Amino acid sequence: MEETTMTTTKPNILLTPGPTPVPPEVLEIMSRPIFHHRTPQFRSVLKQLQEGLKYVFQTKQDVYTICASGTGGMEASIVNFFSPGDHVIAVNSGKFGERWVKMAQAFGLKCDVISVEWGKAVDPIDIKKQLDAPTGKDIKGVFTTLCETSTGVLTDIKAIAQITKNYQALLIVDAISALGGEDCKMDEWGIDIVITGSQKALMIPPGLAFVAASQKAWNRAKDANLTKFYLDLKKYQKSLLEEDVPFTPAITLVLAQVEALRQFKEDGYDKVIHRAKKLAEATRKATQAMGLKTYSKAPSNVLTTIELPASVDGSKLVKMMRDELGVTVAGGQDHLKGKVIRIAHMGFIRPQDLATGFKIFGEALARQGYQCDVTKAVEQFKNL
Amino acid sequence: MEETTMTTTKPNILLTPGPTPVPPEVLEIMSRPIFHHRTPQFRSVLKQLQEGLKYVFQTKQDVYTICASGTGGMEASIVNFFSPGDHVIAVNSGKFGERWVKMAQAFGLKCDVISVEWGKAVDPIDIKKQLDAPTGKDIKGVFTTLCETSTGVLTDIKAIAQITKNYQALLIVDAISALGGEDCKMDEWGIDIVITGSQKALMIPPGLAFVAASQKAWNRAKDANLTKFYLDLKKYQKSLLEEDVPFTPAITLVLAQVEALRQFKEDGYDKVIHRAKKLAEATRKATQAMGLKTYSKAPSNVLTTIELPASVDGSKLVKMMRDELGVTVAGGQDHLKGKVIRIAHMGFIRPQDLATGFKIFGEALARQGYQCDVTKAVEQFKNL
Repeated sequence: MEETTMTTTKPNILLTPGPTPVPPEVLEIMSRPIFHHRTPQFRSVLKQLQEGLKYVFQTKQDVYTICASGTGGMEASIVNFFSPGDHVIAVNSGKFGERWVKMAQAFGLKCDVISVEWGKAVDPIDIKKQLDAPTGKDIKGVFTTLCETSTGVLTDIKAIAQITKNYQALLIVDAISALGGEDCKMDEWGIDIVITGSQKALMIPPGLAFVAASQKAWNRAKDANLTKFYLDLKKYQKSLLEEDVPFTPAITLVLAQVEALRQFKEDGYDKVIHRAKKLAEATRKATQAMGLKTYSKAPSNVLTTIELPASVDGSKLVKMMRDELGVTVAGGQDHLKGKVIRIAHMGFIRPQDLATGFKIFGEALARQGYQCDVTKAVEQFKNL
Repeated sequence: MEETTMTTTKPNILLTPGPTPVPPEVLEIMSRPIFHHRTPQFRSVLKQLQEGLKYVFQTKQDVYTICASGTGGMEASIVNFFSPGDHVIAVNSGKFGERWVKMAQAFGLKCDVISVEWGKAVDPIDIKKQLDAPTGKDIKGVFTTLCETSTGVLTDIKAIAQITKNYQALLIVDAISALGGEDCKMDEWGIDIVITGSQKALMIPPGLAFVAASQKAWNRAKDANLTKFYLDLKKYQKSLLEEDVPFTPAITLVLAQVEALRQFKEDGYDKVIHRAKKLAEATRKATQAMGLKTYSKAPSNVLTTIELPASVDGSKLVKMMRDELGVTVAGGQDHLKGKVIRIAHMGFIRPQDLATGFKIFGEALARQGYQCDVTKAVEQFKNL
């Protein structure tokens, strides 16, 4: 009978850590007739965008909007602030830390890697040790990830920023999967470069990357001589002074982002972060109630990685949940393939989405012979 | 009485050469709930996108979709196929030719410039002369523009391709404002690299750039050693083999592009190009009927640049047309500022939009004291 109910009311729920669901008001805006970007109408939009971004970045610095995937924003943070041969360090504790390493190497930086076991967070002390080492005095940048999307691990950026501010090294934070879901106070904490994307906690489709830089970073930019054009932030900076953009912007996505940021601000920074935190706690409790373990030793507010029972084929499970049962979650990457699922709880994802998600998760596990009490898991999302 | 009619039925018509109006079916698609991109559903979308793009590019080569403004696509054509110090030539006959020059220089290429008076097209023979000159034997690329958006001038790419195919130089064509509105047969003509954007004749909002390259270009790519990561086409190539994308794509825009390309193919390549041609002819006749001149000596099918009477303030005119009369056209750039308007007639722009556009144009001219017979201008768009 349970299965009949499932079939007749097949949901359509997206619980992946990017893209995340888009609020209906935002979807509606994207279906309106387009208008030109060199107009007073769009200048007013750009002004609202800037205000909304500064609020979510918690910064007084300008935030630059690039039409690109998050990786384009990451690249902007390299090509604008570094030169070939610069010595940097990157924390590698998953797929996106690894991307920092590959990218730094692609642009000819001398990149030392702090390798951290998947599932664990870097110890800030290990960064300090590198900076204090005899070979560390020329380190110009520390590349990190606020939340490592491949593992769901949260990095203690506040503690790292306390360290880096005493050195010449810039602290660069890939906050793509987390800004707007995790606390990340750029100015107060002293982060030099923050990068995020539109399709995670910022609640709109992918296509926009956002980058902000501290005064310390801008001072460094003067001598940075990696080649660049489209991602040259000085062009964006110059245009912004004229309330303009250097290249044709993704107008539709910009309009969507302004509305999503309006909703974010209306709810309030602390309240939104708190909401993600509550959902994360409930998700971990629900996981436990099903007799399962969370993978991350330093779990984030934005997504939870759940270890699957050894008897379960995780790739099959993800497919079944999506194609037959109507709930899309993410599987594991690299050596975690088939062994974990990743469930997001940020942005527009609501308690009832997670409740349904866990009900379906239990159903899919049962179909692979793993029986557990879903009721107690689903209960965790009540009254949130 | 004419003015009363205007006020009570103020239109909302976009006639700029990018963005251009988006068909309602495409707008509707962008308002649908988003789904994840690493799914069979999106793989099927990518397949359709590839087929649609190959058709509009008239190529058997794969066409790569980059989440970026058109300029990002232009940059991809430099960083993937050239090395620092490479000798290239660029045709500069307006703002976008100038962009090629600036970009080539930014990446350390040795760029000779063929300067052409604004409003005129480059003579293909001038390119041949450069390639045949004693200093020309090491020229590795010729950078051109299919339609120079700042002037509305069409370049004879077919003739230039006939020349470049006998040399080692690659022919790179910025077709951003024109592909899908002008004839541009990549394979048949022998163009090496074609770049376009989503927001012109391809009828969707800005945010996607498309790049295709010939075998001759790919052979060159092997030794090209400019630094790159986000715009590294080999990453896109490798992903495409796995029916995937290297970075999170702008899902919403990709879905929109698939529908717009479906409409393009349904109408048919020749028919769509012919329609733009007919609208362009009617636009030039309408211009003449108003006692005005077209600026370009080699007018394109996609946009027409109209010289304004000396007594008219073009900047004021554009503002009045847009803010008071409901029709958005583009003004002039650089030294043409205030002296011309640019009207697009590609993609989803219909005869009735141009008829209304000219009616409003006449009204705006009259408000600045220039009287002309609008009726005859408007008539040009009947029965098209």
